Amino acid sequence: MSIVVVGTMAFDAIETPFGKTDKIIGGSAIYVAYTATNFVNDVQQVSIVGYDFPKEEMDELKSKGVDLSGVVVVPDKKSFFWSGKYHLDMNTRDTLVTDLNVLADFDPVLPEHFRETEFVMLGNLAPTIQMRVIQQMKNPKLIVLDTMNFWIENTWSDLQQVLTMIDVLLVNDSEARQMTGEFSIVKAARKILKMGPKYLIIKKGEHGALLFHENNVFFAPALPLEDVFDPTGAGDTFAGGFIGHLAKTKDISFENMKTAIIIGSAMASFCVEKFGVQRLKEITKADIDARLEEFVQLVNFDIALV
Amino acid sequence: MSIVVVGTMAFDAIETPFGKTDKIIGGSAIYVAYTATNFVNDVQQVSIVGYDFPKEEMDELKSKGVDLSGVVVVPDKKSFFWSGKYHLDMNTRDTLVTDLNVLADFDPVLPEHFRETEFVMLGNLAPTIQMRVIQQMKNPKLIVLDTMNFWIENTWSDLQQVLTMIDVLLVNDSEARQMTGEFSIVKAARKILKMGPKYLIIKKGEHGALLFHENNVFFAPALPLEDVFDPTGAGDTFAGGFIGHLAKTKDISFENMKTAIIIGSAMASFCVEKFGVQRLKEITKADIDARLEEFVQLVNFDIALV
Repeated sequence: MSIVVVGTMAFDAIETPFGKTDKIIGGSAIYVAYTATNFVNDVQQVSIVGYDFPKEEMDELKSKGVDLSGVVVVPDKKSFFWSGKYHLDMNTRDTLVTDLNVLADFDPVLPEHFRETEFVMLGNLAPTIQMRVIQQMKNPKLIVLDTMNFWIENTWSDLQQVLTMIDVLLVNDSEARQMTGEFSIVKAARKILKMGPKYLIIKKGEHGALLFHENNVFFAPALPLEDVFDPTGAGDTFAGGFIGHLAKTKDISFENMKTAIIIGSAMASFCVEKFGVQRLKEITKADIDARLEEFVQLVNFDIALV
Repeated sequence: MSIVVVGTMAFDAIETPFGKTDKIIGGSAIYVAYTATNFVNDVQQVSIVGYDFPKEEMDELKSKGVDLSGVVVVPDKKSFFWSGKYHLDMNTRDTLVTDLNVLADFDPVLPEHFRETEFVMLGNLAPTIQMRVIQQMKNPKLIVLDTMNFWIENTWSDLQQVLTMIDVLLVNDSEARQMTGEFSIVKAARKILKMGPKYLIIKKGEHGALLFHENNVFFAPALPLEDVFDPTGAGDTFAGGFIGHLAKTKDISFENMKTAIIIGSAMASFCVEKFGVQRLKEITKADIDARLEEFVQLVNFDIALV
């Protein structure tokens, strides 16, 4: 049970209405990896870090079953750094600083033993980089891709090309609207499915997520939380739970993707409870099972009475 | 199977990004009544209209099983009139005109045979009027109350009093925030449940609805629609489906309320497809069953694999 995870390993400095952090560990591949290790025993990480990325974090990832042989360490440059400040609604944020550092030279070359892996999670990166990873995969069964408004605005033709090479696209509602010019999410979904991906997941933050495939649609709620402490990484955590479950079960049917989305939502609900990956490092199998039961209770109803 | 429905019977003039109507039939009690007649055979309507309210509409309501003996017709005044314009997102609107007309004198006196009825739907009206209805009910089993920001702002102490006399409160997310000063919906819900109602439904428009009771929470999604043509009356239609199902089954358990909320959401999804009550007049039992099956498909998942 292996997953190739491609994305950033970075430092974040985060400000929310509830508090503020100095540089803490972040990056899409970090969130995906910590989450996916709850489901599979071999997470094959592809990333790039600078001299300043802490050895203890690398050791902790290894101890959880993350294979770091695809992570390049650049000895004379710093790791990618992002800083942002969330608004009161926690759905929107301002980016304060983006220091690409090592990320400017990221050209992923996958170790030979990664190339046979069937499940591939491509975190939010330039579409050309995502494409180069896909070209190295020998036998992919499911390729999941995340992207963001920056690539939609600035590298649309590259992104269009990579969309024809993947199975599942993850975007949020505003990105779906941006990609299509459609305000209606349902119309936007229909247009995006014509661009290449077989499955489309539209994330709506606290309002849940929708899965589209052909004429089918499935809705997974977000757990109603008293407080969202820090939303950073929630989307990557969702992705880690989603692909983690699919890789564990080796079942990529629409039915199983529904379960995978509920699991992604459950994992994301942990992520936002504390700053950074802190909460993801603490949770146990029992915590996850209890949270999944909450989701069952949240949406389970009996329509037989009608 | 009877329901007392108290609310407005009115004219609306509506503008949405998709079109514009002249004066059409509207009002909370109209939407509730047309919806509830799909579930019960005796809707006992309590309202007030002017000389201008069309006889054909009264006849149509009667033919559907609506008992109009609680509707006062004022011979020398006009019916309540509301006009509004929706913004592009369809979640917000500007009120252009509110002509109270007959509504200014509304002091509901219930016919004797209405007073024994167990299920009571109090549409959005001044809390003092809602209270006067409650005081006339002899044996209520379930009282459902709708309200709005106007009453929260201007008659808060009356509203607080009526909240102690009801079973289910219906509000939208911004009203829940306004009532409590809490941004978190979960925290707001907890505070509102302490104000009196045993059950609380928070409507989030296209993002679905949440049912809170003690420490339980249930989420019903809204059906993802290609177009929302006119949201007017969607909340009242939701209420009509909700109380209609409960009155039909005479079961006010939390479990059955989950089903009732799904049914309310399904009915609301019809309402928004055309202007006014037009769509509600057209739908058949088969349409409703098919729509309910869409809801089952939308949220039904199997977590046994985990």
